[in-house]
Amino acid sequence: MCRWMGWSGQPLIVEELLFKPKHGLVDQSLHSRMGVETTNGDGFGLGWYGQGDGPGVYHGVAPAWGDENLRELASHIESTMFLAHVRATTGTAIQQTNCHPFRHGRWLFVHNGVIAGFEAMRRDLMLAVAPELFAGIKGSTDSEVLFHLALTFGLEQDPIAALELAIGLVEATAARYGIEHAVQASMGVTDGERLWAFRYSTEGRSRTLFVSADASAVRRLHPENERLQALRDEDRVVVSEPLADLEGVWKEIPESTVLVVQPGPDVQRPFHPHHDPARGNGAPEHRAAPATS
Amino acid sequence: MCRWMGWSGQPLIVEELLFKPKHGLVDQSLHSRMGVETTNGDGFGLGWYGQGDGPGVYHGVAPAWGDENLRELASHIESTMFLAHVRATTGTAIQQTNCHPFRHGRWLFVHNGVIAGFEAMRRDLMLAVAPELFAGIKGSTDSEVLFHLALTFGLEQDPIAALELAIGLVEATAARYGIEHAVQASMGVTDGERLWAFRYSTEGRSRTLFVSADASAVRRLHPENERLQALRDEDRVVVSEPLADLEGVWKEIPESTVLVVQPGPDVQRPFHPHHDPARGNGAPEHRAAPATS
Amino acid sequence: MCRWMGWSGQPLIVEELLFKPKHGLVDQSLHSRMGVETTNGDGFGLGWYGQGDGPGVYHGVAPAWGDENLRELASHIESTMFLAHVRATTGTAIQQTNCHPFRHGRWLFVHNGVIAGFEAMRRDLMLAVAPELFAGIKGSTDSEVLFHLALTFGLEQDPIAALELAIGLVEATAARYGIEHAVQASMGVTDGERLWAFRYSTEGRSRTLFVSADASAVRRLHPENERLQALRDEDRVVVSEPLADLEGVWKEIPESTVLVVQPGPDVQRPFHPHHDPARGNGAPEHRAAPATS
Amino acid sequence: MCRWMGWSGQPLIVEELLFKPKHGLVDQSLHSRMGVETTNGDGFGLGWYGQGDGPGVYHGVAPAWGDENLRELASHIESTMFLAHVRATTGTAIQQTNCHPFRHGRWLFVHNGVIAGFEAMRRDLMLAVAPELFAGIKGSTDSEVLFHLALTFGLEQDPIAALELAIGLVEATAARYGIEHAVQASMGVTDGERLWAFRYSTEGRSRTLFVSADASAVRRLHPENERLQALRDEDRVVVSEPLADLEGVWKEIPESTVLVVQPGPDVQRPFHPHHDPARGNGAPEHRAAPATS
Repeated sequence: MCRWMGWSGQPLIVEELLFKPKHGLVDQSLHSRMGVETTNGDGFGLGWYGQGDGPGVYHGVAPAWGDENLRELASHIESTMFLAHVRATTGTAIQQTNCHPFRHGRWLFVHNGVIAGFEAMRRDLMLAVAPELFAGIKGSTDSEVLFHLALTFGLEQDPIAALELAIGLVEATAARYGIEHAVQASMGVTDGERLWAFRYSTEGRSRTLFVSADASAVRRLHPENERLQALRDEDRVVVSEPLADLEGVWKEIPESTVLVVQPGPDVQRPFHPHHDPARGNGAPEHRAAPATS
Repeated sequence: MCRWMGWSGQPLIVEELLFKPKHGLVDQSLHSRMGVETTNGDGFGLGWYGQGDGPGVYHGVAPAWGDENLRELASHIESTMFLAHVRATTGTAIQQTNCHPFRHGRWLFVHNGVIAGFEAMRRDLMLAVAPELFAGIKGSTDSEVLFHLALTFGLEQDPIAALELAIGLVEATAARYGIEHAVQASMGVTDGERLWAFRYSTEGRSRTLFVSADASAVRRLHPENERLQALRDEDRVVVSEPLADLEGVWKEIPESTVLVVQPGPDVQRPFHPHHDPARGNGAPEHRAAPATS
Repeated sequence: MCRWMGWSGQPLIVEELLFKPKHGLVDQSLHSRMGVETTNGDGFGLGWYGQGDGPGVYHGVAPAWGDENLRELASHIESTMFLAHVRATTGTAIQQTNCHPFRHGRWLFVHNGVIAGFEAMRRDLMLAVAPELFAGIKGSTDSEVLFHLALTFGLEQDPIAALELAIGLVEATAARYGIEHAVQASMGVTDGERLWAFRYSTEGRSRTLFVSADASAVRRLHPENERLQALRDEDRVVVSEPLADLEGVWKEIPESTVLVVQPGPDVQRPFHPHHDPARGNGAPEHRAAPATS
Repeated sequence: MCRWMGWSGQPLIVEELLFKPKHGLVDQSLHSRMGVETTNGDGFGLGWYGQGDGPGVYHGVAPAWGDENLRELASHIESTMFLAHVRATTGTAIQQTNCHPFRHGRWLFVHNGVIAGFEAMRRDLMLAVAPELFAGIKGSTDSEVLFHLALTFGLEQDPIAALELAIGLVEATAARYGIEHAVQASMGVTDGERLWAFRYSTEGRSRTLFVSADASAVRRLHPENERLQALRDEDRVVVSEPLADLEGVWKEIPESTVLVVQPGPDVQRPFHPHHDPARGNGAPEHRAAPATS
């Protein structure tokens, strides 16, 4: 059911978070403790901001624990902002185009969770994607369609409002199909400057999501830990599951909440998806045919 | 731009056609002579009827020439009907879900060619697929969408009429978009009993397609060739490019023509795609929303 | 640490054993209960006797649970004798040449276990392989070297004696290096006619290994189970871990024992590796240089 | 038969050389003009010095032209020294452990060419590798063994002398086996500071190898080319085949020659392999058994 992590802070060699901590993300690919599945071996993805233009993306279909290229990249790429994701497929193919993060321009998106009944709703939801964004859907996952719905609703202008509308539309479509508990989601979104971490599910029992406490508290808690002493005040880690050797430094992100990690104080606010029929309801008649629009 | 071959006849170990002939399909993956591209290294597929229920499908993303598993299967699978395909992508991802043959129930489909301007038309064409077939589209190729359009128009009842309507719809959609020379196609379709081999392009200059001459003529031509002497009257090979060591035994399938290889005499007839607006034109308003239908 | 299974009996579609039983081998790739590791996701292999000459081999580097091609082959290949293996690497690369079964002529070999200190001994052990067999070592596993040592000691004439000498040599070499508990092994060997199943470890605490009870007993135990009622007297399944839905029908193969499944009554006998310095001890001076021999 | 390129100079985003030039290395993977094979589709490798400790290595088994991860890395990794390699196998498996560059500590090695009769000599040559380096041989190529022979003979102290001895030993071994034209090689070696480019073959007709002319000459020749105007005096490109859009700026490296690209003036000197029996001749008796040394 996937696990993900995000880093925002000082330039960091990726392996410092991905491989070195006890129970880091790569270890979670083999032995997840809090996930629905203990094994997340159906692919890996890393999206990072560093050298070159825009975010780079590495998508691997092999399990993260055995991917030699991933180990190499993680130890030779430095980044101030990255998202990493280990995948446990809910049925769709194991292929690079189904690996997170998904990218659009400067934006990255990861999702841990599922859209219930997606196969039945896939056509309706894809139809609700803006026609000019349709060709950007390269894979077959629910997550990628959700990302493109959010892009349709203005993710690049306001990620929170856009994801509220996107998930609202999914829930409204699910209601038409008689599908319960439509959305289960912990999600990460970033443009390289800010990182949005969402925790939400229709049924109100969402996948876990944690953020590291403020760095000064962390340093006081673990005076003996060199890696933690190097943390700066702006550094933040967001994780599906706490890293084992950073005990006591994790704050759970509440249900139906989005955390915005950003320059200056972080912000935490409620996240309430809702459906706006005026902006499309996922039924085909609400979108004009592209050739005539 | 892909190459394909089909076999219909006595039980045959697949490698007899795939690897052993000079300039067989696997050799064409590396050194095609008649294709638009000389290299067809973007994946391989084999669909066969033999042991087990329905057709088996093997999809490889590695180049056929270096795929050890393919070599093993080809030398250990016997089949009375198979389609094999080497892929040269026109831009879509190299992944198993984009490899031919595509399968639906007992049916297999391979396509060598391209739908011009597919990215622009993809949404419209996917919309024209019957909603109940939509979830069967697993990859991102033009070929798979074309197959699902043909299924929508009744391929399982009448493959020729269905592909005439499917290609007619693609051409009509292309006309709306101002796209010329919309369809370039040599295609193979089979249900395990009969093999339909189509050659067609909107501009009337199609990819090559050949069928082996009747077996008795072949045996007379090459009395010294053991493999050819073993051919039975019903055996047929259909190929994008002639196999080099079967010189003189190939008949070109004409433009805008479909050959039906079947028990009893084969049949060759004209293939004339046309658009039937009453059966859907690819614009969304012609299909009801699935939830209300 | 790997899991394996073998079938000897009536022609069987492979998936009947690989996918259909509760807790079958593919399920064990994700959720092993008795293995040292719970996940065996570092590759898969199937070797079978059926159509075509000699055994066919399929080697996949993806986890078995997500390998679409494996699912296809398993449901379209029928075999009277096959070995299947899921791998959990002990450090060597995840690549096809490291996947079991290893093959030599008509022979197949699978190994679940490890040679302790293999990296240190690898050169010595490879040197002890007959020079004319050296080029057959394509990968980097301990298992493949062990197989080639057994071939060197005459596996094709007498698999039991050959493996006793091969393991004896490994243990003697380990003794020189001060390595304890050198060999941990459950192994399967077959020539397509007979199946040898070995259970042995230097320390006398070996990986589990089970064989299905005689078919008539199985049928009496489960009168309601159609699949079991179809078992014939000669049918045998050998497994690292019992299949869950065949409860009560498994006999454990004892420590230091080899079971020979064959036409006529099966035979079980003690397996006692020993070192014969006259036949080579793994130190280079005991083998002449190939160019002068 | 492989192609390779090397960069030494100012920090450069890798794609500037790998993808952007007409007939760059990735294009050569599909359409080599001067190679023995036109297609180099059997894997890719990149070794680079940049962020993190020591060189990073990316090894891909897919053809370079279709490898999305390669495209991402190339556009997001900046390096002052890198080696890239496209592979056309001469028979050994297509797997990451057979991809160049090979690495040992800070050192990287690429090889375009072949050791004739390698399968016959493989055991002897592997035996001649220092026992403590033996475990570093992870794949099955002639190139990796040649690299480890050079390491055995002191590549880290003096790459030229070491490769002269390594190739000398291969040639002497080949002579014992009656193998002609034993070595065909263009090779690149680097420690991140200097780049050694070798051109040599036993028969004196070696694979092509070129180096870019000094930067000031290049700038004068192409005043209109922005990318070339940005070249600094120390920048050097070494290539198996000239990049098409840098016409007139390539100097061929002569037969039996090594070029050393380094801070300060580059050096070009003769390269004369020779055999030193006192330092081992590849026959096993010249090396003590590791356990007793």
